[in-house]
Amino acid sequence: MTDTARGTARRYGTRPTMKDVAARAGVGLKTVSRVVNGEPGVTPDTERRVQEAITTLGFRRNDSARILRKGRTASIGLVLEDLADPFYGPLNRAVEEVARSHGALLINGSSAEDPAREQELVLALCARRVDGLVIIPAGDDHRYLEPEIAAGIATVFVDRPAGRIDADVVLSDSFGGAREAVAHLIAHGHRRIGFIGDQPRIHTAMERLRGYRTAMAEAGLPIDASWVALGSTAPERVRAAAAAMLAGPEPVTALFSGNNRVTVTAVRILGERPRPLALVGFDDFELADLVSPAITVVAQDAARMGRTAAGLLFRRLDGIEEPPCRVEIPTRLITRGSGEIPPEDV
Amino acid sequence: MTDTARGTARRYGTRPTMKDVAARAGVGLKTVSRVVNGEPGVTPDTERRVQEAITTLGFRRNDSARILRKGRTASIGLVLEDLADPFYGPLNRAVEEVARSHGALLINGSSAEDPAREQELVLALCARRVDGLVIIPAGDDHRYLEPEIAAGIATVFVDRPAGRIDADVVLSDSFGGAREAVAHLIAHGHRRIGFIGDQPRIHTAMERLRGYRTAMAEAGLPIDASWVALGSTAPERVRAAAAAMLAGPEPVTALFSGNNRVTVTAVRILGERPRPLALVGFDDFELADLVSPAITVVAQDAARMGRTAAGLLFRRLDGIEEPPCRVEIPTRLITRGSGEIPPEDV
Repeated sequence: MTDTARGTARRYGTRPTMKDVAARAGVGLKTVSRVVNGEPGVTPDTERRVQEAITTLGFRRNDSARILRKGRTASIGLVLEDLADPFYGPLNRAVEEVARSHGALLINGSSAEDPAREQELVLALCARRVDGLVIIPAGDDHRYLEPEIAAGIATVFVDRPAGRIDADVVLSDSFGGAREAVAHLIAHGHRRIGFIGDQPRIHTAMERLRGYRTAMAEAGLPIDASWVALGSTAPERVRAAAAAMLAGPEPVTALFSGNNRVTVTAVRILGERPRPLALVGFDDFELADLVSPAITVVAQDAARMGRTAAGLLFRRLDGIEEPPCRVEIPTRLITRGSGEIPPEDV
Repeated sequence: MTDTARGTARRYGTRPTMKDVAARAGVGLKTVSRVVNGEPGVTPDTERRVQEAITTLGFRRNDSARILRKGRTASIGLVLEDLADPFYGPLNRAVEEVARSHGALLINGSSAEDPAREQELVLALCARRVDGLVIIPAGDDHRYLEPEIAAGIATVFVDRPAGRIDADVVLSDSFGGAREAVAHLIAHGHRRIGFIGDQPRIHTAMERLRGYRTAMAEAGLPIDASWVALGSTAPERVRAAAAAMLAGPEPVTALFSGNNRVTVTAVRILGERPRPLALVGFDDFELADLVSPAITVVAQDAARMGRTAAGLLFRRLDGIEEPPCRVEIPTRLITRGSGEIPPEDV
């Protein structure tokens, strides 16, 4: 199906309903329901009028709601980007708990940060009749989802927004959290602060970079190009980035790490250095308070993100039709020691 | 379907094949294939004979292999017990990598350690046409899977064995690892050692308890009933168990914790005590080397477990018919400090 054949995006708020079909065909809702579900009791002439209205309006039966009503085990899909990233643990579990409270099963899959894999997985889950999807997107173009959404599959994005379609999304305040983290380091005397973040095509990485830049600008501090390193969160890449920032005559005196994968490697680098280096990490992580020094972090409320996203999804499955919304969950700075270390040369 | 109606378990090695049907009906393999797939070119008499052989032998078409051949996206399901337990991260990712190398998608679900939920999820995945399943079981009776296995869904168990059916299983050497951990503590002078483990209905919890008991017996050491606590891994339960073992005139001088969830709480308890307490944990965990003291663990090779289980599954999907096997992956003691602390009173 080409983009043109698909027509324009059918948004939640504008998708034709059975009521619209009934009004256009000049019949009652029950009659439309009979035609749609192939039940008897409709005259051929009325059936033709209803079919014409369905075609004209582009109405598609909401199979999800129908499946839920029919008593078949409902299921929702959750598409993550990395099943082994501990940040997604509480999010995953929160979505599962909401699903369970609605009597639905949760099915997961991982895109492994590959947009093609994300699309393949999402469409496979749709083909397997999930009723709705919570997606942490890897890609930035989700128009492939339009026919599924039009066919009644509810979709909520979490952690990162959808690309080129209008859909519900639940985000952390990555910008605000990063800005607060860097302002905190500046308040403790740092002027040369490094930022090691995730790959630049990832929305949260860019938002955290924006927060870093904003905090530096607000303090009137210049940023040397060598202080910013975006890329894979693999330990060797993070080590190389940190080594580059710490070399030369004007090394950074503090690091702001863009997510928990980067932070864990940064903690190891800190432990190997003879002199202290300040560190604030984005994302809290298990045992952050038990390493020495304990790690100051910007904590995200991953469980609340998952709960909110799943809650929105079930509202959609309940038939609530309203324009897509964007929910932003605040972050929280937790000071534990590593972010309060003063610069070496002060 | 009752257990009786199902007949005896159809094992991999004994499941009738198309070849068996052909031999019994006295026709060629191609003829059986035509009948099974509803293709033309078979006389009514031959078709009747083939159908009789199918009924007599209890042959069922292997839909999984058929689906794989037909080019539809293959998919395998992985049923975990807790999506947020970091032990399953590398296992999960390893299964995913093997699936990907076979061009198959991985779909996950969590039983949340509830046998009813496990069954519901497994059957839902089967109904959604996964080609095979890797299962970390919560329950101890998997006879509900017999019709699915007979219908061609390949099944491999990992981390814990299947109950009441014969199936491939990949386990860690929980017994050997626990025995080595406790012998290590004994070698460092401990005589009163506590064991805090997971719930007694979990296979690995009982195997680790058996390893603990064996090591104590081999050293001629008695075990006080108050030194063993099996139950939930929730922090409050672990704290209460440790407090009970550390109270009284003859407190334990060392702890052996039964999995990473217990260990993380034990690490916190250690950090709060004025005097040292030895600790060896089952399962390695992130940052175990960076807390103080660094934690001695019995590491499981979770990635290897996942890789092995998924490899077995794809062998089954390739049509290899051989009796179910049991693979045991060795564990490895990693000494880091906490397990080498001598008893207080020595």
